[in-house]
Amino acid sequence: MSAIRFADRFFPDDLKATAETLLPKSRAALAAIEAKSCAGSEWTGWFDWPRERGQTLKKAILRYKDDLDVYYDLVLVIGIGGSYLGTRAVVDTLSHTYAGMGSRELSPAPLVVYAGHEISEASLIEVLDLLEDKQPLVNVISKSGTTTEPGVAFRIVRSYMEKRFGKAEAAKRIIATTDPDKGALRRLAKEAGYQIFDVPSDVGGRYSVLTAVGLVPLALAGFDIEALLNGADDEFTQMREKTALDHPVLHYAASRNAAYQAGKRIEILAYAEPRMHSLVEWWKQLFGESEGKDGKGLFPAGMAYTTDLHSLGQYAQDGVRNLLETFVVTDEAPYSKSSKIERRLRVPAAGDVDELGYLEGRFVGEINQKAMLATMVAHHDGGVPCLELGVNQLNERTVGSLFAFFETACAISGALLGVNPFDQPGVEAYKKNLFGLLGKPGFEALGAELKKRF
Amino acid sequence: MSAIRFADRFFPDDLKATAETLLPKSRAALAAIEAKSCAGSEWTGWFDWPRERGQTLKKAILRYKDDLDVYYDLVLVIGIGGSYLGTRAVVDTLSHTYAGMGSRELSPAPLVVYAGHEISEASLIEVLDLLEDKQPLVNVISKSGTTTEPGVAFRIVRSYMEKRFGKAEAAKRIIATTDPDKGALRRLAKEAGYQIFDVPSDVGGRYSVLTAVGLVPLALAGFDIEALLNGADDEFTQMREKTALDHPVLHYAASRNAAYQAGKRIEILAYAEPRMHSLVEWWKQLFGESEGKDGKGLFPAGMAYTTDLHSLGQYAQDGVRNLLETFVVTDEAPYSKSSKIERRLRVPAAGDVDELGYLEGRFVGEINQKAMLATMVAHHDGGVPCLELGVNQLNERTVGSLFAFFETACAISGALLGVNPFDQPGVEAYKKNLFGLLGKPGFEALGAELKKRF
Repeated sequence: MSAIRFADRFFPDDLKATAETLLPKSRAALAAIEAKSCAGSEWTGWFDWPRERGQTLKKAILRYKDDLDVYYDLVLVIGIGGSYLGTRAVVDTLSHTYAGMGSRELSPAPLVVYAGHEISEASLIEVLDLLEDKQPLVNVISKSGTTTEPGVAFRIVRSYMEKRFGKAEAAKRIIATTDPDKGALRRLAKEAGYQIFDVPSDVGGRYSVLTAVGLVPLALAGFDIEALLNGADDEFTQMREKTALDHPVLHYAASRNAAYQAGKRIEILAYAEPRMHSLVEWWKQLFGESEGKDGKGLFPAGMAYTTDLHSLGQYAQDGVRNLLETFVVTDEAPYSKSSKIERRLRVPAAGDVDELGYLEGRFVGEINQKAMLATMVAHHDGGVPCLELGVNQLNERTVGSLFAFFETACAISGALLGVNPFDQPGVEAYKKNLFGLLGKPGFEALGAELKKRF
Repeated sequence: MSAIRFADRFFPDDLKATAETLLPKSRAALAAIEAKSCAGSEWTGWFDWPRERGQTLKKAILRYKDDLDVYYDLVLVIGIGGSYLGTRAVVDTLSHTYAGMGSRELSPAPLVVYAGHEISEASLIEVLDLLEDKQPLVNVISKSGTTTEPGVAFRIVRSYMEKRFGKAEAAKRIIATTDPDKGALRRLAKEAGYQIFDVPSDVGGRYSVLTAVGLVPLALAGFDIEALLNGADDEFTQMREKTALDHPVLHYAASRNAAYQAGKRIEILAYAEPRMHSLVEWWKQLFGESEGKDGKGLFPAGMAYTTDLHSLGQYAQDGVRNLLETFVVTDEAPYSKSSKIERRLRVPAAGDVDELGYLEGRFVGEINQKAMLATMVAHHDGGVPCLELGVNQLNERTVGSLFAFFETACAISGALLGVNPFDQPGVEAYKKNLFGLLGKPGFEALGAELKKRF
């Protein structure tokens, strides 16, 4: 059985009917991914990954970690887009919210921080501040090694590491995840003697979390990468079963396409555990980059509930009716292992001046779950078609299942929409302009042309 | 002169022409706000606030802070929506990214954390974990004191504080910001002997950051509330000058309405300093709750650049062409005072294997600024109308100016759209359903009806 429950209790009947007619196409698209006969099939390596190459990789990573002979309390991930979003999704969803603050007990595992996913001078200065207080490992992740953001960040961090630790120890503290054969980072890493892990050639950035891209930093930070792989493998296996013609992934892909056909233009992924923020950021890249092309696609937006009910909730209830809303619900609240307080929290007795007396003794988590239901009904009644995806709790295993589920849903969605879900031609436009403006050799003519426009 | 520069270099000519025709309406709307003759005029107290009541309040807060005789290193803000978003906007924009982590030098000011802006059991447990390691002050902010999220959080935190410190010291460590005359929180606070600050009756939640709602926790956390007020006051003063018929706020409001009339449905606020994330969350509430009603309004979305260029950038470049994009640009990078590393950062020399040799010796901030320009041109050329708002740098004064600018732009935008920008009728729907599902006395019938639907 899939680890993800799909429900369309609050999805209108006409859209349900359209979704039903799309199911055969959904099934055909899934079969084409499995058979590697779909558009962009050279990029479907993620589908077999957890059961095949992922297992070999896992062993290599754990062996490397065992052999590592430097002390570290921080892992700095240098990468942009798919090179860090999956890692951050796991870290934020499964760590204590205040890890790194307060006493050491709140953060028994190494802290994970990020650079090269932006190019703010102030942010980079602040990363250096933090490194200075810590014993860092650095994992630089870039297929080519020439992307501007991680490239600049890595220059700065490498220079810092070599000054602080000397070249030899810095080399032990730097790991490169890059192209298996060629590229600037591979050459640099070989010369400097860094440990190297490979980015597979048949998995694109946004589908790469379970390759070395995500597994290396996650293992180094103490997460259970075996459970992550197993959760994903189970889900992919369910999809491969010929009897699984009713897998929830088919229904989710068909339903969201039905909503798109009916004129919906924004999909809100709504979540009740704030720690899922980065998981939703990962989802936004996955779907935004896969579907947003040829003038098409649902615009992916995230809403943290109940927080955003007091912010974008008014819009969701009463604004333009071009929204589709998908609720990710969890049966049990996640509790980080390092907490010192009792594992459950009830509303304490305190009279009824605040009119909350009727909640006395109830678990806070129950109120949160009811709030999700209450919102689903309210938004449905306000004209927003609502879908539900449920998991029993948040842990490495279920997050692995969610990765497999959303990756496959996204690839199927691309097929239904008629786009190649594995390319991203639009990402090049700003890069070229930037080269022109910065005067990169070979881009001087473009630079001159652009300057005339300011 | 306004502290905010407006530019429409990359806004298409036909939309510019529509915006031009909307300017007189923009001006009339601004005049009606000033004269308190607009729709919802009983909620326009924010417009005169910084020069009048804000000054008296500032003195009262600073006197209270001087007299406070407990040591604290953490301020816990309990509030939802407008009760915390403005505070968090200032804190995150003007603090060290890793405040509270690493050595004390990274966080000389008290840490600010939040509760009651959601109702996750796990999050509340983690807040209690952190409190246990700290010496907290608690500021509970609620007009009524009966809102479920802050109400439940306050029950739990108050019970914790009284157990830990005893009733007498807990009372010194709890501050209530609430209705000036009535309500549950006021009654509770009076009984318990908490310090009380007033939420003014003519300022709605999302316009309240410069009232006691924001100024109390910000002053306690060490931010310069005088500069915040002065930045806002200067901006409001510019808008009052009869000669200021060309104030950028009029152009921004007119331009975004022109884009809406042309079929744009999503406004992206794009920002190049990741620390502005919470400022953009504040903006999302302000515009989403003010405009998203009667089936109308631009859906407000935020994008952090260059981060999101490797995520939603593909959609922005090539997806459905219903986007308007507003870039917030800063001339100088912000540098937090507590950093130990040199204040500027250049790209170090490191050969040219990474093809970044041409950037050697350049400031990282320059690359970031050029990336914003490069993106604006790319998205404009891809069919997205782009607007620019510029400030010289990020500090209390300019953030105050941005608050004044966006609040006024939002009120004018509501007038142009034909909605009341000061109400939020749609926020009640989920609340009522929640009362029904939880069995609140008086909502039993609704509860029974809802349960039939599951």
